[in-house]
Amino acid sequence: MDIRRIALTSGEPAGIGPDLCIQLAQHDFDCQIVVFGDPELLRQRAELLNLTIDIAHFDANTPTSPHKAGALLVSPVSVAETSIAGQLNAHNSRYVLTTIEEATQGCLAGVFSAIVTAPVHKGVINDAGIAFSGHTEFIAALTGGHPVMMLATPGLRVALVTTHLPLAEVSNAITPKTLSDVIEILDRDLRQRFAINHPNILVCGLNPHAGENGHLGREEIEIITPVINRLRSQGLNLQGPLPADTLFTPKYLQSADAVLAMYHDQGLPVLKHVGFGKAVNITLGLPIIRTSVDHGTALDLAGSGKAEIGSLKYAIETALTMTQTKEG
Amino acid sequence: MDIRRIALTSGEPAGIGPDLCIQLAQHDFDCQIVVFGDPELLRQRAELLNLTIDIAHFDANTPTSPHKAGALLVSPVSVAETSIAGQLNAHNSRYVLTTIEEATQGCLAGVFSAIVTAPVHKGVINDAGIAFSGHTEFIAALTGGHPVMMLATPGLRVALVTTHLPLAEVSNAITPKTLSDVIEILDRDLRQRFAINHPNILVCGLNPHAGENGHLGREEIEIITPVINRLRSQGLNLQGPLPADTLFTPKYLQSADAVLAMYHDQGLPVLKHVGFGKAVNITLGLPIIRTSVDHGTALDLAGSGKAEIGSLKYAIETALTMTQTKEG
Repeated sequence: MDIRRIALTSGEPAGIGPDLCIQLAQHDFDCQIVVFGDPELLRQRAELLNLTIDIAHFDANTPTSPHKAGALLVSPVSVAETSIAGQLNAHNSRYVLTTIEEATQGCLAGVFSAIVTAPVHKGVINDAGIAFSGHTEFIAALTGGHPVMMLATPGLRVALVTTHLPLAEVSNAITPKTLSDVIEILDRDLRQRFAINHPNILVCGLNPHAGENGHLGREEIEIITPVINRLRSQGLNLQGPLPADTLFTPKYLQSADAVLAMYHDQGLPVLKHVGFGKAVNITLGLPIIRTSVDHGTALDLAGSGKAEIGSLKYAIETALTMTQTKEG
Repeated sequence: MDIRRIALTSGEPAGIGPDLCIQLAQHDFDCQIVVFGDPELLRQRAELLNLTIDIAHFDANTPTSPHKAGALLVSPVSVAETSIAGQLNAHNSRYVLTTIEEATQGCLAGVFSAIVTAPVHKGVINDAGIAFSGHTEFIAALTGGHPVMMLATPGLRVALVTTHLPLAEVSNAITPKTLSDVIEILDRDLRQRFAINHPNILVCGLNPHAGENGHLGREEIEIITPVINRLRSQGLNLQGPLPADTLFTPKYLQSADAVLAMYHDQGLPVLKHVGFGKAVNITLGLPIIRTSVDHGTALDLAGSGKAEIGSLKYAIETALTMTQTKEG
């Protein structure tokens, strides 16, 4: 099997992103990991963490070899101003976006098999006067495709029809086209990226008790059930619409490959409860493979050595599994 | 300590309610359990289940003594027509409501310390031409009070601001008065019914990421935060509004006495995932103590012997704890 090369963006420099890259690099991996970030920032952060790290610069001629504990292969991008752990600085926002752009372009060019991202801080990027609605949207704008958010932890995968939307706008956002597109992408990527032959997808209702035959809302009758029926007739293996409160129990989950929630807080509380410390955020629907940690920048922990690498490690492992399935 | 007397309604006769009462009665309890239902129906169902049961009728002169395995003390109410397991019959809907009415009146009169309810079937009651919006609402109409739904399982309690409402109506239903009333009832009942001195309540935001400073909805800024701040200034121990997706993790839960979710599918998926087979539905805010199973009538399991009594047993235990706290 070929050695895969993974692009790892170090994220917001004042957050735990650089810490996670350095802490992760203390372990061996079967793949090559190339960190996109400022080498001097990473050196300083390693010092703060009391970790020894051997930084080398990556370029097009660097041979592919598995990552060895203690090494750090960096595709250099320079911060605008020295970053201090825990202190956001809008002058470095452009730097954060450049790391993502370069890593994404590298994936599109086939230099990397996948991009794994450390957390960014949406607020400080907007403070810099850059319109930025989200990490995933930013990558999708570079690659094309319809991004579908799926979180996973061992034993459970939850994808979302709508993501970062005020609750009051969710109902109107569940259109036949959106729902249909998301289900088709989820089905396709579970086959292609996760090698699941005939994915069994549990589709949540939108309303409590999945609308209780129209007594608690009609979106199930008017939108969700017709879409499910149409896609079933095309051979998709769908169950639903199911009440979200009883769906996350063994009776349903034992045969499921993924749950499709209609909105953010319907599906993610269970996923993050189950997957605490070991959950990954996967972007489906893109021409490249992208995974991410499931947590934020945790500014208060930057430089402290208290950041937990569980989610990032799982993000790398998941990206690797996905690349092997796709190309292997 | 006095022996408590618990009123247990047997629920929809075609469902698993009668089964659960009979199966439960096979165990000893520290309290007296009085089942509200049709004695002949219960006898027939016991036969179907191959369980021996010794039925006695309850009346005002029955002495209070702990429940002994194999006995079944029944406060008799007659079905209109013989009930067949699994087959709904609208002619018996009035019977179902009478069992609830009599048990509730018995609680109000002090004959019983609490009411515990087996599941009813909302649809068949409405089919009978009786306007019936829900079990809880029906009881609250008899007792007065502002019912607040809380589900509990060992280690987790989740209360709801709104319950059985189409998702599109949730945002408008979160008013300062409703939210404030619910929090005050939750705080008061955790003190009075659960003997928690200074309950630590985690309040969810309404929107994803609790609105992310207004970027994903403004209800947190305009309604939830002001209510929390006002109640905090009165001494309540509240945290929030917190993002629902990260709240159900040890960092927050370890110090929490209850989580307050804004709506049904924000809080109950986690609760039912954690509490599978051992969750109870508690109605706070009433002048009487009421608990219920957390599941439905399961018509397909009636008479099969496959109904699980875990939730009903926990409902009885929880009601007992609550009565001891209140009066003890």
